[in-house]
Amino acid sequence: MSKLIVGMIGFGVVGSSVLKTLLNNHAIINARAGKEIVVRRVVVRNEAKAHAKLKELNATEVKVSTDINDILQDSEIEVVIELMGGVNLAYEIAKKTLLAKKAFITANKAMLAYHRYDIAPLAKGLPVGFEASVCGGIPIIRVLKDGLSANHINAIAGILNGTSNYILTQMQQHKQDFQTALKDAQNLGYAEADPTLDISGGDAGHKLLILASLAYGIHAMPEDILIEGIEGVTPDDIEFADEFGYVIKLLGIAKKQGNEVELRVHPCMIKKEAMISKVDGVMNGISVVGDCLGESMYYGAGAGGDATASSVISDIIAIARGESAAMLGFERTLDDKHIRLKHRDEIFARYYIRLYVSDKPGVLGQVSQILGKHHISIKAFLQKETDSKNVAKMLFSTHHCYERDINSAFAELGEIENIVQKPYKMRLE
Amino acid sequence: MSKLIVGMIGFGVVGSSVLKTLLNNHAIINARAGKEIVVRRVVVRNEAKAHAKLKELNATEVKVSTDINDILQDSEIEVVIELMGGVNLAYEIAKKTLLAKKAFITANKAMLAYHRYDIAPLAKGLPVGFEASVCGGIPIIRVLKDGLSANHINAIAGILNGTSNYILTQMQQHKQDFQTALKDAQNLGYAEADPTLDISGGDAGHKLLILASLAYGIHAMPEDILIEGIEGVTPDDIEFADEFGYVIKLLGIAKKQGNEVELRVHPCMIKKEAMISKVDGVMNGISVVGDCLGESMYYGAGAGGDATASSVISDIIAIARGESAAMLGFERTLDDKHIRLKHRDEIFARYYIRLYVSDKPGVLGQVSQILGKHHISIKAFLQKETDSKNVAKMLFSTHHCYERDINSAFAELGEIENIVQKPYKMRLE
Repeated sequence: MSKLIVGMIGFGVVGSSVLKTLLNNHAIINARAGKEIVVRRVVVRNEAKAHAKLKELNATEVKVSTDINDILQDSEIEVVIELMGGVNLAYEIAKKTLLAKKAFITANKAMLAYHRYDIAPLAKGLPVGFEASVCGGIPIIRVLKDGLSANHINAIAGILNGTSNYILTQMQQHKQDFQTALKDAQNLGYAEADPTLDISGGDAGHKLLILASLAYGIHAMPEDILIEGIEGVTPDDIEFADEFGYVIKLLGIAKKQGNEVELRVHPCMIKKEAMISKVDGVMNGISVVGDCLGESMYYGAGAGGDATASSVISDIIAIARGESAAMLGFERTLDDKHIRLKHRDEIFARYYIRLYVSDKPGVLGQVSQILGKHHISIKAFLQKETDSKNVAKMLFSTHHCYERDINSAFAELGEIENIVQKPYKMRLE
Repeated sequence: MSKLIVGMIGFGVVGSSVLKTLLNNHAIINARAGKEIVVRRVVVRNEAKAHAKLKELNATEVKVSTDINDILQDSEIEVVIELMGGVNLAYEIAKKTLLAKKAFITANKAMLAYHRYDIAPLAKGLPVGFEASVCGGIPIIRVLKDGLSANHINAIAGILNGTSNYILTQMQQHKQDFQTALKDAQNLGYAEADPTLDISGGDAGHKLLILASLAYGIHAMPEDILIEGIEGVTPDDIEFADEFGYVIKLLGIAKKQGNEVELRVHPCMIKKEAMISKVDGVMNGISVVGDCLGESMYYGAGAGGDATASSVISDIIAIARGESAAMLGFERTLDDKHIRLKHRDEIFARYYIRLYVSDKPGVLGQVSQILGKHHISIKAFLQKETDSKNVAKMLFSTHHCYERDINSAFAELGEIENIVQKPYKMRLE
C-alpha cells in the first residue's frame, strides 16, 4: 500500500484529535483511503508541549519543529493541514503550501471568510479541503458541493455556533439570564474566556460566507453583511417567544430571490414546529432548501476536537482517493456571474420589538403613530406590568416590512422621552 | 464544453423529474459538472406515453425506444440510468451496462439489497452511483462514504420509509387507527394501492442493508435480518407510548458491538427528546453515530420525483467530474473481513408488551410468572378498563432482555386461555 504523507501546522485540540484518530482508526481509514496515511511532521510554537503530547499518543516518530519551512521543504509531504487559526499568517501558509505544489487542508473559517477567493486561483487543480471549517463534524461542505449539486439553493438557515446555541438554550429551558448562561458555558468549556467572536455572531458570519460561496458564488466579506449577536436577548424576549409559539436561535441565513441573495446573522424567533428549532445545546444544525430536493437538514456536533478531526480526515481520505480535483468548488458555481448581494436595507422580514416605556397615557399612541408612519403594522401585542417604578414592557411583533423602515422608525423611537431604554428588535422567520 | 451523454431506462415519475431538472437547471448543473449533460435516449414500455411526456418537457430530441440494446449499443452513451424498478431485470441491465463499459446509476434499492455484491466485482473501476436508492434526496450515501469516512460507525437509526412514517404520525397526532391512516396515505398518493412493501418494513429493510454495506461491509440479504412492519400498531400502543414519554417510529437499526452488528427493522418506541423522534409525516431522517463525530442526523424528503432526481443528478455530476472511481464503495470497508451479523436471538433490547386478558383474578400472576421464568422483568405497567365484555388491557415495558427469551415467553403466553388476543410486542430504543 502506497503512502500519503502529511504535515500539520498547529497541534492543539483538533491537531491531537486528528493524529489520535488516524492512529486509532488506521485500519479502516487506510482501507477507505486506499493509501497509508502518515503524519510526518508537526509545526508548533511550543516543542516541549508537542513532544509530551506525542509521547502520550505513542507517536514519537512524528517530527516536531517550530519552522513552517520544515514542512514546506519536505518533498515527501503531499498534504499540509493548517490548524493554527488566525487570518493573515494562516493565509500566508495556504499560499506557500499551494506554491510548493502541496494539497492544503484547513479548519480555519476566519481565514476563509477573508481569503477564500484569493486561494481559489492559487490552487490550480491542487486539492483544497475545508470540510472542517463549517460546523465541525457535519459534512455540510460536501452536501452543498456534491450531494445537492443538482439544485439551485433557495435558502440556507443554520445554527452555526454552538456556544450561542448553548446560551440561548439555557436561557429558554432553565430561565437563566444571558450573563448566567454565558458563565455556565465558560465553566463547561463551551465558551472561551473572551467569548466575543461566538456571541457577537462573527464566527457564524464567517461560516455563512463560506456556505454562501458554495451555494451562490457570492464574494462578500464579513463587513458586507448584517451580523448581530445574542448579547441583547433578555428573559422578556424569551417569554414573548414562548407565549407566541417561537424559540429564539442565532441563525445564519442566506435567501435567494431572483438574482439577489440576502446574507445575515442574527438572533431570531422561529416557529416551534420548524425542525431547526429543535437543535438545542451546543449542537449545530443547518437547513438547506434546494429547488429540486425541497428542505433538508443536517445536524451534529459543530465543534470539539474529535468531531472536527472527523472532517479533517475525510478531506485527507478524499485527497488520497484522488476524488478532489474540484475540491475548493467555488469556481464551479455559475451563479457568481449573476447573483448579487442584496443591500441590508432591502431585507424584508417580520420583526419583534421590545420597548420599556414610562407608564403614562399616550405612549402607545406615540409608538404606533411612529410605526405607522414608517409603514410598519403590528401583528401581535403583549403588554405586561413590571415590578419597577412605573415602567411598562411593550412587546410586539410586526407584519412584514423593510429593514430600512424599521431602522428609521427606531431612530425616531429612540428620541421619545417616555421610552426609558434603547428599543430592541429581533427578526422572525 | 465537452458532453456527457446519458441514457435512461424507465421514464416514470423519477425519470421525468431527472430530465425536467437537467433542462431547468442546465446552466448550474453543467457548470458544476464541467460538462454538458445530455439525455440522448429513454427506453420505455409505452412509447406513445413517453413521446407525450417529452413533448410536454419540450425535449422531443430525446430518442425513445422499447429496446434496451438501443442504449447499450449507442457508443456515445457513457452513463446508463436505471429507473424501472424490480429486481432481476434491473440486475441484468446493471450487468450488461458494466460489461458494455458504461457507468451505471440506479435508484433501485430492492435490486441493490439482493445484488449489490454481485455488481461490485463487475464494476472494475467503472462508476456505479446509487445515491437515490436510500432516502430519495438525502445525500446519505455520500455521508457514509465520504463525509464520515474517518469514523467507525457505532450505530445507524433511520426513518427510512415515508409511507410508514406518515401513517404513524397520523395515528399519533390525529388519533387515527391504522386503517384510516393508511387510507389517508393512499388518497394523498403517499401509499400505493398495494402498500405491502412499505408498511411491512420490507422497503426500509432494503435501504438498511445498503447502508450497512457501506458502514460495515455486511453481506446480508433481506431474509437474513429481522424485519417487522407497522400493521400491528394500535391506538392502545400509541396511548401507552404517549403516557410514558415515547413516540412510535418504524426504524431501520444497525448497531455495532465488538465485531458483531445487529440489523433490524421494526416499529419501536423512542424517547420524545431524541432528535429523530421529531421527524414526522412523509419525511425521512437518519441518525448516524460515529466513534469520532458522535451523533449526527440527516433529514429530508425520502421519496418523490424531484427529490429522487436531485440524487440521481448528483451522481451524474460526480461522474462528469471524474470523482467517482470508488463510487460503489463497498469494497473500501475493511470491516467486512471482521464483522459478522449478530443472530436475531441475541438482540438485547427493552420491550413493550400488550396483552388483552379476560378480567379474571390470577391472570396478572400467570403472566408475570411466565415472564420471570424467561428472565424478563417489568419496568412500567399500565392496566386500563376496556369498554368490552370483561376484557382488560395490560400494557407494560420490560428491562433489557434477549430476543430469544421474549420469543419463548410469547410462545407460552400464547397458550394461556385468558389471553384473548395474540400478544403483541414492540422494542424500545
